[in-house]
Amino acid sequence: MDKWEKIIIGIDPGTNVMGYGILGVNGKTPQAIAMGVLKLDKFETHYLRLRRIYDRVLSLVEQYLPDEMAIEAPFFGKNVQSMLKLGRAQGVAMAAALAREVPIAEYEPRKIKQAITGNGAASKEQVQEMLRRILSIPKENLLPELDATDALAAALCHFYESSRPIQQKTCSSWKDFIAKNPGRVK
Amino acid sequence: MDKWEKIIIGIDPGTNVMGYGILGVNGKTPQAIAMGVLKLDKFETHYLRLRRIYDRVLSLVEQYLPDEMAIEAPFFGKNVQSMLKLGRAQGVAMAAALAREVPIAEYEPRKIKQAITGNGAASKEQVQEMLRRILSIPKENLLPELDATDALAAALCHFYESSRPIQQKTCSSWKDFIAKNPGRVK
Repeated sequence: MDKWEKIIIGIDPGTNVMGYGILGVNGKTPQAIAMGVLKLDKFETHYLRLRRIYDRVLSLVEQYLPDEMAIEAPFFGKNVQSMLKLGRAQGVAMAAALAREVPIAEYEPRKIKQAITGNGAASKEQVQEMLRRILSIPKENLLPELDATDALAAALCHFYESSRPIQQKTCSSWKDFIAKNPGRVK
Repeated sequence: MDKWEKIIIGIDPGTNVMGYGILGVNGKTPQAIAMGVLKLDKFETHYLRLRRIYDRVLSLVEQYLPDEMAIEAPFFGKNVQSMLKLGRAQGVAMAAALAREVPIAEYEPRKIKQAITGNGAASKEQVQEMLRRILSIPKENLLPELDATDALAAALCHFYESSRPIQQKTCSSWKDFIAKNPGRVK
């Protein structure tokens, strides 16, 4: 069994399908450990769906013992009804992480697409293809549901964000960066 | 210590204050067991607030072992941002109930006001005063925050709803009701 310096669980919570991905990191090398989807449309009530999300995320947390959770979280939605439902789905997924003291980071879909493909308006297929290449995922391991790679993309985005040098984050321009980091520019 | 045939936990989740109330029922007599508020505005991050809601609701569930949870749940809000936050607060509170297999019922604020005061547009103060009389709560036991009585009102509303005869629930009019329940009309 592989040993990982850090494990990140990525979650893409929705009210019909929840995607999840487990990313292992050794040094600067991220690798996909697992990914999957939880189909919720077969459950009749809203509570059963929330219950299934909570149970699955909790069991993933207990199985993989992630150090951090990255969640794909849209900040805008069609209407207040859908946002309330999405908020609940996010809430129960977050509760499962909070229950086991796993810190949570959230990223907007646009931010994740930008981090993985360099284009904030990339399609889900483009994100999947780019992710497949970065993490060397065999094509036969991909699922037909793009929610799984979306979740893994959230985890990879979090890895990129958290491994950026701190100085760089606070710089607003190259001029600023060079002024603050004279030793890093040759 | 009192023995209760049924215990209902009422929750009024919010992002600044969460109210809770514990209602005990023996036969047809409901009684207030406990109520309180959790102030969240002192916590800096959204995650710390969600964590506190989850922890508190879970500890209440473990302390009072409620049979059911009633949650005050507005279906409409100012904007998608506030609804997402409210959904998350509801979600973590629900997760604490789901984690201990406690069934959840939700009620709109208007429905709760109607059930307690007979007026769906009653003020929070009117709900508190009516609740105080129905449950014979000493005035000195009331909290300055109305969220506590709001939560207890949700529990009482659920008690009224769940103890109504089943036939009555499915009747859409008095004519319908009389036709289905000839023995109950004199």
